[in-house]
Amino acid sequence: MFQGLSAFPITPADPDGRVKTDELAGLLERLVVAKVDSIGLLGSTGSYMYLAREERKRAVAAAVAAVKGRTPIIVGAGAMRTDEAVRLAKDAEEAGADGLLLAPVSYTPLRDEEVFRHFAAVAGATGLPLCIYNNPSTTHFTFSDALIARLAAVPGIKAVKNPGLPAAEIGPRHAALRAMVPAEFAIGYSGDWHASACLLAGGVGWYSVIGGLLPEPTLKLARAAAAGDRAEVERIEAAFAPLWDLFKQASSYRIVHAAAKRLGLASGDPPAPLLPPTADEIARIEPALAALRAV
Amino acid sequence: MFQGLSAFPITPADPDGRVKTDELAGLLERLVVAKVDSIGLLGSTGSYMYLAREERKRAVAAAVAAVKGRTPIIVGAGAMRTDEAVRLAKDAEEAGADGLLLAPVSYTPLRDEEVFRHFAAVAGATGLPLCIYNNPSTTHFTFSDALIARLAAVPGIKAVKNPGLPAAEIGPRHAALRAMVPAEFAIGYSGDWHASACLLAGGVGWYSVIGGLLPEPTLKLARAAAAGDRAEVERIEAAFAPLWDLFKQASSYRIVHAAAKRLGLASGDPPAPLLPPTADEIARIEPALAALRAV
Repeated sequence: MFQGLSAFPITPADPDGRVKTDELAGLLERLVVAKVDSIGLLGSTGSYMYLAREERKRAVAAAVAAVKGRTPIIVGAGAMRTDEAVRLAKDAEEAGADGLLLAPVSYTPLRDEEVFRHFAAVAGATGLPLCIYNNPSTTHFTFSDALIARLAAVPGIKAVKNPGLPAAEIGPRHAALRAMVPAEFAIGYSGDWHASACLLAGGVGWYSVIGGLLPEPTLKLARAAAAGDRAEVERIEAAFAPLWDLFKQASSYRIVHAAAKRLGLASGDPPAPLLPPTADEIARIEPALAALRAV
Repeated sequence: MFQGLSAFPITPADPDGRVKTDELAGLLERLVVAKVDSIGLLGSTGSYMYLAREERKRAVAAAVAAVKGRTPIIVGAGAMRTDEAVRLAKDAEEAGADGLLLAPVSYTPLRDEEVFRHFAAVAGATGLPLCIYNNPSTTHFTFSDALIARLAAVPGIKAVKNPGLPAAEIGPRHAALRAMVPAEFAIGYSGDWHASACLLAGGVGWYSVIGGLLPEPTLKLARAAAAGDRAEVERIEAAFAPLWDLFKQASSYRIVHAAAKRLGLASGDPPAPLLPPTADEIARIEPALAALRAV
């Protein structure tokens, strides 16, 4: 389940934080039809930290009903409190999720032992396999390789979603972690603009923001990188370059929300205080999407 | 209200996140009797991001009932969503709070315009004066002086709680902001180990963690610094030094929770995933407290 392209859709919601399950179902159908390897529901792109427990439950139930077992669904269960993360994980399992994604969301910065116990508690709360969500740009906690290796020995913890690194850096970093975890432990990456480099370096999964909106070109890039076809990767990356620039400038979160709206796939905006991109940034979305139509 | 020593107590709670209002009342009585200038309820030290809305409401109601108007109560209203922060601010006002403290809590990193609108929305939601809570170590958002100045022009926004800086840096930084905001806008500081330097540099408020537990020695330090008595500040700072070392190493949050327990003022631990300090750190708490008894 933690291999290949995991596509992370937005979770459309109204200004009060009520999930628009019909729009969500429409986004998910595109992913199923395109044959992504898994769906990453309620990830950072899916606004999990901005949605109440009941809405997260509604989103999972709606996704399970829409996907009908055709594609595995991995659900984000992150929360500030361990008891709340445990409840969210159980909710996801009851609603029919196939796997869990857990980030060490924090306010008071966390220590390694605190993160370890938090993950062990959530992993032990359900029968679902769990992927460690290492996303320092939002959680402000950075996993050491040693902590990932310690967590990889906990029953149920089967994968890590690490932040991607540039081609010049990822090789030795991937190899170092690979040497510390069991062979069956899946090391994947997020950060769309580094993903192909990470797959070429041996990563087995790409947890993708743009894959949740535009699965076809994203799958082409993922398949080319997994096959080690560097010329094809280079060709497709050139088409993605304007979008990556926007992601870096305005965050992928704001850009995919605005792009989904522009494509008529979702009708709302991100939850306040988050705003749509600036007018200048929005003007650059259509050309960036156009560059991908030829891929 | 945003001048002098603002004392931030912990919010005692059981492992399920239910506030222990009797223990909270006991902590608050110490602050009132010691005559701190204000109480900072549900700040970072008061676990606001780990408590549900209903519990935060209960904590404010219990505090208002215990303090009986003897000391102004400033209440933290921070939340990921603007609508939730607005609800929390209204809850606090209805329960009898005297002021608000608002931090730009984030998951997706926030832009300046997003923070501006978030603060304007919360400031406009109640009749209470509001203090900007600038705490990059927990919120991961850093206010520019220009943004603080822009917010200082919003009706209701009356003060900032800035992170403290060492004596060698605070002078010009304080003066630069002072020159950009109205004379009646209060600039205060947090970060206990830098506070006396910040008061000596012209800061008018100290938002203090240790003041919430040990108001007497903290008030002595605050009064000496406000009076510009550098010799007395130096003498008292020497007594605080072992505690500041512990705060820096284990976070003031973990240390004051453990110290409150040791002093018999609270019976619980921080909410999981947060843990008490390590055994080594706990062993250093009693000597650090002993050093303060002679102040």
